[in-house]
Amino acid sequence: MRESWWERFLDGVADRGRDRLKLNASRDPVERVGKHCEALLTSVGEASGTALAREVARELEALDDAARLHLLQTLNVRFGPDREAILRAADAYRTEPSLETFLALSRAIEPPRQELFRRINRAPGGTRTLVHLRAHVLRLLPEHPELGPVDADLLHLLGSWFNPGFLRLERIDFRTPANLLEKIINYESVHAIGGWDDLRRRLQADRRCFGFFHPALPEEPLIFVEVALLDGVPTAAAPLLDPSAPVADPARAHTAVFYSINNCQYGLRGVSFGNFLIKQVISELLAEFPRLDRLVTLSPVPGLADAVRRAHDGGGPLGGQGPRRLLADHVEPLRQASGEADPLAALLQLLQQPRPDAHGEILAKPLERLTLAYLTRAREGGRLADPVARFHLANGARLEQIDAFADLSERRMAQSFGVMVNYRYVPGAVEHNHERYMADGQVVLARPLRRELRRLEQLWPPAEPART
Amino acid sequence: MRESWWERFLDGVADRGRDRLKLNASRDPVERVGKHCEALLTSVGEASGTALAREVARELEALDDAARLHLLQTLNVRFGPDREAILRAADAYRTEPSLETFLALSRAIEPPRQELFRRINRAPGGTRTLVHLRAHVLRLLPEHPELGPVDADLLHLLGSWFNPGFLRLERIDFRTPANLLEKIINYESVHAIGGWDDLRRRLQADRRCFGFFHPALPEEPLIFVEVALLDGVPTAAAPLLDPSAPVADPARAHTAVFYSINNCQYGLRGVSFGNFLIKQVISELLAEFPRLDRLVTLSPVPGLADAVRRAHDGGGPLGGQGPRRLLADHVEPLRQASGEADPLAALLQLLQQPRPDAHGEILAKPLERLTLAYLTRAREGGRLADPVARFHLANGARLEQIDAFADLSERRMAQSFGVMVNYRYVPGAVEHNHERYMADGQVVLARPLRRELRRLEQLWPPAEPART
Amino acid sequence: MRESWWERFLDGVADRGRDRLKLNASRDPVERVGKHCEALLTSVGEASGTALAREVARELEALDDAARLHLLQTLNVRFGPDREAILRAADAYRTEPSLETFLALSRAIEPPRQELFRRINRAPGGTRTLVHLRAHVLRLLPEHPELGPVDADLLHLLGSWFNPGFLRLERIDFRTPANLLEKIINYESVHAIGGWDDLRRRLQADRRCFGFFHPALPEEPLIFVEVALLDGVPTAAAPLLDPSAPVADPARAHTAVFYSINNCQYGLRGVSFGNFLIKQVISELLAEFPRLDRLVTLSPVPGLADAVRRAHDGGGPLGGQGPRRLLADHVEPLRQASGEADPLAALLQLLQQPRPDAHGEILAKPLERLTLAYLTRAREGGRLADPVARFHLANGARLEQIDAFADLSERRMAQSFGVMVNYRYVPGAVEHNHERYMADGQVVLARPLRRELRRLEQLWPPAEPART
Amino acid sequence: MRESWWERFLDGVADRGRDRLKLNASRDPVERVGKHCEALLTSVGEASGTALAREVARELEALDDAARLHLLQTLNVRFGPDREAILRAADAYRTEPSLETFLALSRAIEPPRQELFRRINRAPGGTRTLVHLRAHVLRLLPEHPELGPVDADLLHLLGSWFNPGFLRLERIDFRTPANLLEKIINYESVHAIGGWDDLRRRLQADRRCFGFFHPALPEEPLIFVEVALLDGVPTAAAPLLDPSAPVADPARAHTAVFYSINNCQYGLRGVSFGNFLIKQVISELLAEFPRLDRLVTLSPVPGLADAVRRAHDGGGPLGGQGPRRLLADHVEPLRQASGEADPLAALLQLLQQPRPDAHGEILAKPLERLTLAYLTRAREGGRLADPVARFHLANGARLEQIDAFADLSERRMAQSFGVMVNYRYVPGAVEHNHERYMADGQVVLARPLRRELRRLEQLWPPAEPART
Repeated sequence: MRESWWERFLDGVADRGRDRLKLNASRDPVERVGKHCEALLTSVGEASGTALAREVARELEALDDAARLHLLQTLNVRFGPDREAILRAADAYRTEPSLETFLALSRAIEPPRQELFRRINRAPGGTRTLVHLRAHVLRLLPEHPELGPVDADLLHLLGSWFNPGFLRLERIDFRTPANLLEKIINYESVHAIGGWDDLRRRLQADRRCFGFFHPALPEEPLIFVEVALLDGVPTAAAPLLDPSAPVADPARAHTAVFYSINNCQYGLRGVSFGNFLIKQVISELLAEFPRLDRLVTLSPVPGLADAVRRAHDGGGPLGGQGPRRLLADHVEPLRQASGEADPLAALLQLLQQPRPDAHGEILAKPLERLTLAYLTRAREGGRLADPVARFHLANGARLEQIDAFADLSERRMAQSFGVMVNYRYVPGAVEHNHERYMADGQVVLARPLRRELRRLEQLWPPAEPART
Repeated sequence: MRESWWERFLDGVADRGRDRLKLNASRDPVERVGKHCEALLTSVGEASGTALAREVARELEALDDAARLHLLQTLNVRFGPDREAILRAADAYRTEPSLETFLALSRAIEPPRQELFRRINRAPGGTRTLVHLRAHVLRLLPEHPELGPVDADLLHLLGSWFNPGFLRLERIDFRTPANLLEKIINYESVHAIGGWDDLRRRLQADRRCFGFFHPALPEEPLIFVEVALLDGVPTAAAPLLDPSAPVADPARAHTAVFYSINNCQYGLRGVSFGNFLIKQVISELLAEFPRLDRLVTLSPVPGLADAVRRAHDGGGPLGGQGPRRLLADHVEPLRQASGEADPLAALLQLLQQPRPDAHGEILAKPLERLTLAYLTRAREGGRLADPVARFHLANGARLEQIDAFADLSERRMAQSFGVMVNYRYVPGAVEHNHERYMADGQVVLARPLRRELRRLEQLWPPAEPART
Repeated sequence: MRESWWERFLDGVADRGRDRLKLNASRDPVERVGKHCEALLTSVGEASGTALAREVARELEALDDAARLHLLQTLNVRFGPDREAILRAADAYRTEPSLETFLALSRAIEPPRQELFRRINRAPGGTRTLVHLRAHVLRLLPEHPELGPVDADLLHLLGSWFNPGFLRLERIDFRTPANLLEKIINYESVHAIGGWDDLRRRLQADRRCFGFFHPALPEEPLIFVEVALLDGVPTAAAPLLDPSAPVADPARAHTAVFYSINNCQYGLRGVSFGNFLIKQVISELLAEFPRLDRLVTLSPVPGLADAVRRAHDGGGPLGGQGPRRLLADHVEPLRQASGEADPLAALLQLLQQPRPDAHGEILAKPLERLTLAYLTRAREGGRLADPVARFHLANGARLEQIDAFADLSERRMAQSFGVMVNYRYVPGAVEHNHERYMADGQVVLARPLRRELRRLEQLWPPAEPART
Repeated sequence: MRESWWERFLDGVADRGRDRLKLNASRDPVERVGKHCEALLTSVGEASGTALAREVARELEALDDAARLHLLQTLNVRFGPDREAILRAADAYRTEPSLETFLALSRAIEPPRQELFRRINRAPGGTRTLVHLRAHVLRLLPEHPELGPVDADLLHLLGSWFNPGFLRLERIDFRTPANLLEKIINYESVHAIGGWDDLRRRLQADRRCFGFFHPALPEEPLIFVEVALLDGVPTAAAPLLDPSAPVADPARAHTAVFYSINNCQYGLRGVSFGNFLIKQVISELLAEFPRLDRLVTLSPVPGLADAVRRAHDGGGPLGGQGPRRLLADHVEPLRQASGEADPLAALLQLLQQPRPDAHGEILAKPLERLTLAYLTRAREGGRLADPVARFHLANGARLEQIDAFADLSERRMAQSFGVMVNYRYVPGAVEHNHERYMADGQVVLARPLRRELRRLEQLWPPAEPART
């Protein structure tokens, strides 16, 4: 069934109900939507309620940026909690702590906009509208922190509706409906897909792609992961992405590389799917290819370049002195190649040259050491600064390998000087790694990196516990 | 996919996580489950959390009645809201009404068992466990009103998870998987199904059956409705239920009779599906059979007999005098047939005889009048006393016809002296009827019943507005 | 799609075409159908052709037995080959052997009824009609051998249309649509299914059922097999068929027992599916249950009792003297129990008693030896007399074990004195066994039966090669 | 199931059987395949037979052109009918016309390659191999008419296996699996599809695309049709094909234009699907869009230009004098524009100019008249010369309209000077038109074209009946 019965039914109800609605005729869209929201909150007629919900959903989608901000501020104030009512209810509960007074206090404290959102969710496409609305809120939030409560309410409701038990895992390949593949092309943001031929290569026999779907957003992936089946752990992205690379026999692969994970719905940020997706995909892969014994990612290190540049200026999450000390072993070659005495300045200078990988021999080791420092030391607000590291480590992966000059694309050079890393999921150790990371923030490393960490700590002793 | 990936995945996680759980070894099951619930609420490790959730879910399913009651009381108290914390948070909010103090108060007021239930919902089969748990709570509630808060929390969460946008409407016929049909046989409670042959007749060409399903309860109907396609409005149940009745050509039918609506999940009481089901089924039927112009139910009147007996004793929702006055036109024939001077006593006496329908001519009119009075006058707590009437009238149906001796089964004789009624859905009037009923409790009647109502009001003038 | 587009389309065409048909009005149905067949063969208009084909198909289904026989004889003569035309075409080909004269001869020799059947096959439900028609032909053939050519034509065409590449293998369980399960109940003829509860047991976790389906006969199994997953090779049917037997864990089974194979379409006799079905089911089972290492049948020996009775009378496929000599080791105990000196007479007398299994100790060995002789020696027209043995041996199975008193049902007692046998499929040896059987009719035996065969051959030396 | 069980099963059998095959080691591929064909024809072992069939299928696919021709000639001779055996069987039948002698003659006359093809058809992918093989035969046939018998055998078998009752009609849209859409892009030959964006436009809301599929060629369309839903009958192709054309509301369309019909499997030429496809698509469209009242094609006239050029040279299917007479009304304007006195020469000269449509006013009428003459008069071997006209007229369409300069693409200019025509399907008249065309070759015309035909016949009276 291509349109859900529910949408068809509501369309019918709303069409009949429209005439009965006394729709507001104000020419100011914010005022009009605001009035409709009030009417929706107080409606008892079901058809008129649904028609209003559909009207509100459509109006929300149609607002321009300024009007939408205005409306969100209205929602924040007009449909927020009533302080006086809360305090009265708290007093009543204090005086007589019965079930009635408790429930009255509960009701008082729930902002009316939660009920408003619930009612919008019953309109045709209402879930989609709320996901879009939250995306707007998230974009506005840095400059409009007052929208925090609206965001909190939306996140609370979406988290309940997008319960992982309601998701479907689906394999995506070249037999998948084309309209869905088109969305994969559009949503891929880690390694952009250049078109249908590029996509085709990513879906051939030695590749796998899986996504999560939710019944209320049919034909809309929530998140998807792209996997390559190879013989060894890759140290660079280009061979994985080459549309003309020969297709290998997946049955002979020992390694599965998760080389791209994409959250598709910005409005669902904070509703966590990636962990479930990776683990489920691992179990699908192991069932299909019993030979697989290495499950790794090829992941970006998005904050590395910024942290190194700020270290050069004496600050940032790494601070200025530690990083310089780390490069003690490499001062001379860096100086010779660049003419700069300060190793950080030398490194940055060489990396700004047109083909920095020409200095690969000189730069690779310093870059790896700085990356290891960044991924283990750089913390913000007590947690690791790097969001990709946080994600995989919290999922129970370990840091397996650091690959200098693994991705020479402009974007990756700007983000991390081309450095990529491999996180590895060892099925039997995932839970243990997860708990170590959750309990004390410990970054589990593969053996070679543990050796490297010891050298690092000689050069730059940890002044403080790993987790502030 | 017969088992959802989520269940398979969680089984895997839980199996691995079990060893790490320090499961409580108490021999008192309530103490053990309670400890596990506490551990679950505070767990951070994902696998151990899931394993605990599964453990708790299984333990909850395995408890005996006494232990379950004990546990529910524990949940009520130990996982209820913390009064002192609420009052402290309210004070902080009163002193400084910031977002932080507001959110702190919100958190304080949410009983920890809500989070507990959410975590149980992530376990394999967790949704099912919570639906079962609520069924137990509902059964216990009359004697244990203190469980009201637990019930309120469960209803709140289930209502969110069973959002109508997540339901699938499915037609059920003899091509439906047999394991599901077996459940239809078991869940049918309006007109019991005697076995596969009986079921088969109810699924033939002149019948329709539709149900709602939810992704978290696969192969488990939430509610289903049985429809017969006929030529006229039926006045009795037996012809509809006769397994050897000839199969009519549905394309010639003018009437669709909703003769059985069954809610299958007692634990979802209060989460409303029936309204959506009926309306969607109406639109499916009209699409398939454009000739249909009468959409009626054949419905029981479950509280009628009890109300009449209590009226005979001078009380109940009808009171004692009104009903007697209604029978003014029939005193003499009733007296002659029974020897009783009091018409209510006469009526009851005749109805207790082995074949009361033998007195059909004498009894039919009085029964119809009493039924009309019951369905329009008998109210409890300000709303109609009869639950079936409340359901259909709130959905926008009107009361179409009253059928004496329509169902002579023992159960129906005990409930309503065999009376059944037809509610009718007139597509264009549903919304209007719904709103009249919701606004002032008005029972919309078909024209012949409106005449009958006028006579009734002459005999027994309404002392008060229809709705208290 | 429940009705194929083709059927809907043809219905439309035929409905429009009917008016244009000059349908024959003869009151003699055979004459009418005959005329319609002639019209169909010569029709050029597509719609009128299809309408005629549908008419003919319906008429064929509606004929009574006498009329159908009469019609088939008509088909045989009137739509048979034209001898004079064939001989003329043969002369032309002899004179000038060109492609044209060859094709003319080919056309002359194809009986017009083949084209007639092809055209009927395009009518709605035409394939089904022809399968039914062939079933009638097969039933009539013994008394009406003149219908042989009609049968040959139908078999030729059906064999082409029921190519195994067009079949779907489907697992049948309690999630299968109920209307299909109802057919399984009806078609099961090896061990009758007593109703839905009996069926349910046969579809539980320790059982498997698979069938073949064809696109032109939707919802109609062609053949199905029932499998039990056990720990050891069964020697009796009753435990497998007991509806209240406990359900075992299939993951622990070492043995898969094919205990019932049913061809559902009598009209497809001679179009072979069973071999493909068994082998495909074996590969499905081995994929699901890697522990399985014994794949056996529990099979009837349908001609055994008849052969033994005829041997007692001195004839039949075993002849009279050999069987008597085989019982040489058992004369005395048989005589003591029965009072009969002739061992065959004694055996038969004991087997006619109410509970012959009471004499199990005396009867088992003689029965097993006679069965082995029957399955290796009894031949008709040069091939094994027993059809079940022919089927499994030609498929590459070996005879594994003989089970006396394995099935005490009335039917099996009458067929084979209750004897059943196990054939075993050893995946690696199937091809070799198949070729030995095909090449020289050799019956491959399990080791214990090979020993028993040597003793048998001492008592009754083979006078002639195994295959005449 | 993505690979049919049958293919998986046969792969297994063939893998086991291979070792037992004594595969021919000849280095001459034709000799090797020939030997394998002989072995396949005489094989009795099932697994070895299947392995051989698979070997033969693979070898056939791998042969180069020269070797394939050589092999086909071998098939023609070595696996052709045995003349002596046929004549002997004919003699036996002449002497004693029994069922046995008849069947012996039937067997003798069937070329062994038919059985060979049947056995190849059981191999994995065998059907596909035979469809490919026939495509090769068809390509070779013009220069190698001796392959006619092989072609006849393949057509006979494929016609039986591709019975319309076994086809599935499927709607193709942007939800269709991408691998199938890729084939649509490749197979479209009427109006080439430029890529995914072009395809996307052809599958939007105001377009429909349907295809036929067969179980033995999964994911492989046999034929598909593209339909545009418009308001009026189109007179040019470009607006239909413009990828950036706005999407219209299909619910308001009155006209469905079949603007492209593509047979995808050259090897199935002569197995007719197009007729069934068009009629079924018409019934799907009328069910979805009840407003549609014009069902037309926009069709090429592939032989027009060639016939006019040959007429200019005095020959071809139109002959030289008639066409000149038809242009009597237009001699002067043509002469003025071109300087040529002979109207046909003038026409051709103008049409060779870079933008012939600049002379549209002068050329349109003459082109339309010539087209009408070509479509009604030009016959070859007694049937209409134009294959597209034959197809639609035999299906029951009528010629509705002639559109000069409707398609200015290079290809269409070369084929028909850019002329396209509309055939129209009037549901109630299809059968009647079909029968008139089949009975006496009559081309049914729309009213305006009937008038034009009368003028045409004045200028160029028909010397002979429409059909020779």
